[in-house]
Amino acid sequence: MGLRKLGERKIIKLLTSRLRRSLGMISDFDDDAASFRFSGKMVATTDMGSMGTHFTNADPAKIGRKIITSNATDLLSKGAIPKYALVSMGFPESTKMEWLEKMYAAMDTQLSQYDAFLIGGDTNKASEFAYSVAMLGEAKGSILKRSSAEEGDCLVLTGNIGSAAAGYLIRKKGFKATAAEKREFFQAQDDPKINAALCKKIWPQAHAGIDVSDGLAFELNEIARLSGKKIVVEWEKIPRSPMLEKFCKRNGLNEEKIALNYGEDYQIVFTTPNAEHGIIIGRVEKGKGVFLKRKGKLKKIQSKGYEHFKSN
Amino acid sequence: MGLRKLGERKIIKLLTSRLRRSLGMISDFDDDAASFRFSGKMVATTDMGSMGTHFTNADPAKIGRKIITSNATDLLSKGAIPKYALVSMGFPESTKMEWLEKMYAAMDTQLSQYDAFLIGGDTNKASEFAYSVAMLGEAKGSILKRSSAEEGDCLVLTGNIGSAAAGYLIRKKGFKATAAEKREFFQAQDDPKINAALCKKIWPQAHAGIDVSDGLAFELNEIARLSGKKIVVEWEKIPRSPMLEKFCKRNGLNEEKIALNYGEDYQIVFTTPNAEHGIIIGRVEKGKGVFLKRKGKLKKIQSKGYEHFKSN
Repeated sequence: MGLRKLGERKIIKLLTSRLRRSLGMISDFDDDAASFRFSGKMVATTDMGSMGTHFTNADPAKIGRKIITSNATDLLSKGAIPKYALVSMGFPESTKMEWLEKMYAAMDTQLSQYDAFLIGGDTNKASEFAYSVAMLGEAKGSILKRSSAEEGDCLVLTGNIGSAAAGYLIRKKGFKATAAEKREFFQAQDDPKINAALCKKIWPQAHAGIDVSDGLAFELNEIARLSGKKIVVEWEKIPRSPMLEKFCKRNGLNEEKIALNYGEDYQIVFTTPNAEHGIIIGRVEKGKGVFLKRKGKLKKIQSKGYEHFKSN
Repeated sequence: MGLRKLGERKIIKLLTSRLRRSLGMISDFDDDAASFRFSGKMVATTDMGSMGTHFTNADPAKIGRKIITSNATDLLSKGAIPKYALVSMGFPESTKMEWLEKMYAAMDTQLSQYDAFLIGGDTNKASEFAYSVAMLGEAKGSILKRSSAEEGDCLVLTGNIGSAAAGYLIRKKGFKATAAEKREFFQAQDDPKINAALCKKIWPQAHAGIDVSDGLAFELNEIARLSGKKIVVEWEKIPRSPMLEKFCKRNGLNEEKIALNYGEDYQIVFTTPNAEHGIIIGRVEKGKGVFLKRKGKLKKIQSKGYEHFKSN
């Protein structure tokens, strides 16, 4: 059913009627503000985007999951577990109600893995699909900043990078891929998976954290700059899909550039003095800048000039 | 200076460098998420809009103030005082940095009246100016819902209504107005003022609350519907600018429609058994629906058909 016939009140009723409800929630979904009890260190993040620039296809479930993931990784990188989300949406009147319901169901399911809840938001008419999510989380331990990396820390990553970029290059630039590559890379691009249980294991000893949504090179430069440290990352240790090298060779692509300069993988890099969990990819040292060690040679990695395909 | 030359990092640095900083804030402005300590009942609201539909002129200070006010009244109507705001903005690359700085300064000043702080957000490129604000507040007493009005409650309003609509009609529809009318009505439209101190006095005994951003008729119908009560509002008691009647007569406009069916005044209506503060405009009774009493006669006020000029 189209939105024009429904009106805002019915739209909200349909969208919220099947959402899980937090026991801590005091207010009703149809009120102007959401309220809940909280005590502790709250971490809040917000993200805004539009259909044109942030998504490559229009599957509502994938969009719903990705919207939640991109905010959740911001919190997880700071040492916080997602608790509540406020989701605002703008959509053209021609949008189908079923499409929106699928997206909200997907957001709700995605939040449920953290035991987090969608508690409020705002709906608007808009000429193109646009969204804004505010997500609130709770940190039991220290807040992991970009600026708090310490000399001697290990650099720890939570999963593969480069796959989302490969998915983008296949879809948008027409590069050749096998069926298996497409399956894996599209999955990474549409449905980034972040291991919250692994993050929780890393947090207690970690010093700094950042998600690699804007590319590893850019994010490591942010940590190095704001912490006033040097970072050395080892190429051979960076976790990548076994298919990435072949895909790059076949298409004459620079694998290093794809793994380091593209983004959207939504993995998290932490710095921690005792790296018992996660994949160690390098080290924080005294000095300045970010360097890649490959076959024993050091090369400076620039923050500038990264190709952030979100805005392409 | 234009945004193209600056880049996102410098833009954020410039926008945040002059903001007041909350002592409760743990994180830095340049981190992915904002963090702070909190204990109690948190109330969260979010609002999204774009330049095309929500604003009538491009003064950055007025826009900044109004963006904050529209969220603050959502919290104040629930019995909560604003504490933190996350502001996301999308703007065309042609936007001047000075324009953005003025808007952020205005938001910060507006927040300061509640002792609230801007603690985070997101910036994006966009084809037209768009914003999304998430505001977090604290309720010391009960949460005032739309659904919690009780039989016998007084209906209490915090200030004049109808003035913002008059401003809209002068500007957009070309109705005639004196210089004094223009001054007052434009002020009401651009710079709605809400008396937080008055709200605080009303809260301890209040049962329900809603802001009248969508017009008094619509909002009272929301309270009546969700509380399962009848509401009787008295025309003669509704606070209006002394200039409104003359303005309407001169232009052949229906004052009742303007005061009841338009919105954007951002005043708040509370229901409370003991109305020692605020302007009493009516009463909550047993039954259904909303009625206007004028010269002793009762007339039903419909929720439907309200002219919400935000979307015109």
